Amino acid sequence: MKYPKGSRKHKNPINDQSYKQSTQFGKRGMTLEKEIIETNKYYLVTDLAVIHKKPTPIQVVQVDYPKRSAAVIKEAYYQQPSTTDFNGLYKGKYIDFEAKQTNNKTSLPFSNIHDHQVQHMKKVEEHGGISFFIIRFKQHNETFLLPIRPFIQVWEKQFEGNRKSLQYQYIKEHGYLIPFTLQAKVDYLKVLDSVYFNGGDNNESRRQKS
Amino acid sequence: MKYPKGSRKHKNPINDQSYKQSTQFGKRGMTLEKEIIETNKYYLVTDLAVIHKKPTPIQVVQVDYPKRSAAVIKEAYYQQPSTTDFNGLYKGKYIDFEAKQTNNKTSLPFSNIHDHQVQHMKKVEEHGGISFFIIRFKQHNETFLLPIRPFIQVWEKQFEGNRKSLQYQYIKEHGYLIPFTLQAKVDYLKVLDSVYFNGGDNNESRRQKS
Repeated sequence: MKYPKGSRKHKNPINDQSYKQSTQFGKRGMTLEKEIIETNKYYLVTDLAVIHKKPTPIQVVQVDYPKRSAAVIKEAYYQQPSTTDFNGLYKGKYIDFEAKQTNNKTSLPFSNIHDHQVQHMKKVEEHGGISFFIIRFKQHNETFLLPIRPFIQVWEKQFEGNRKSLQYQYIKEHGYLIPFTLQAKVDYLKVLDSVYFNGGDNNESRRQKS
Repeated sequence: MKYPKGSRKHKNPINDQSYKQSTQFGKRGMTLEKEIIETNKYYLVTDLAVIHKKPTPIQVVQVDYPKRSAAVIKEAYYQQPSTTDFNGLYKGKYIDFEAKQTNNKTSLPFSNIHDHQVQHMKKVEEHGGISFFIIRFKQHNETFLLPIRPFIQVWEKQFEGNRKSLQYQYIKEHGYLIPFTLQAKVDYLKVLDSVYFNGGDNNESRRQKS
């Protein structure tokens, strides 16, 4: 059953934020993305990190230039991104990641992930950056950080005829559950601290591993 | 004037590519941007650096979803970028820069540079990244790399009533002339090597300082 715009109401306004938003915007991936953007704003104002979402690439075909007002794009098309959704800087390190969410309970399908994106993320690691996926299983209400290396191990096997998806169990084993806080809804820096920065050094609370 | 490496050849028809292109595209800033994008492609395929242009931010207002074909954006507007044009990764370092060109002989006007962009670049440096402007004076056929710090010294004085532009002489004194090569039309990594990486260490030719 499809719910029209804004008609769904849940009991807990905070926990169910994701459902509300996904209904409102009606686009897959929108909720997680918005929560990460909000988290990044929090990181920015608290001077923890400088991480931004890249704009969606759009191919502009026709533009009108009306007198005395802004240019109006009259025909344009969404393009496939050549890199990832998010990048930036944390503790002097280049950070690069892609966010994906799924309604599937047991796996994340590889649809919507493109090989050139994965190759870009691999290159980032080779050049000394930190690259990973943020993956949300909406049915489990769990969000994981999965480093690019364990991702690639499964990704490359699809070309040998293996399945075109990442198993939930595999992500649980090789990824890290991202904690949720009110200020940072997808608090992935906590995971980066424990995985890439040896427990962190700029914040007491970041030393606690979950 | 500081020359990071190699000598520049003038009166060379290849060098005048910028004039040709700017006529062809007829848009301010287009030529330099295109040359940097090409340079980045060369850096990428030669595995020197992973640096990309961010897509232009566009606010989509109306989209049509025709059956059996791609979504068509019917109404959209260009937005002011919240960060810079280019970012990426070089020798393990986060790189972030903005490109500007001018027909003016004596200065680069501050129009088209926004304070939030400058604040972003300042933050990048504070967090351990490398941030700079690439500035082309078309009339001089010269392209400079100007680090964010000398830029900010002048930028902030405009709010005390000083002029809203960066003098050519100042850029010459505090910036670095970017060499031109056939493969890398705006070979700014050479400047980064000599300014930020002590002469470079991954390429023989990059060790030569002039």
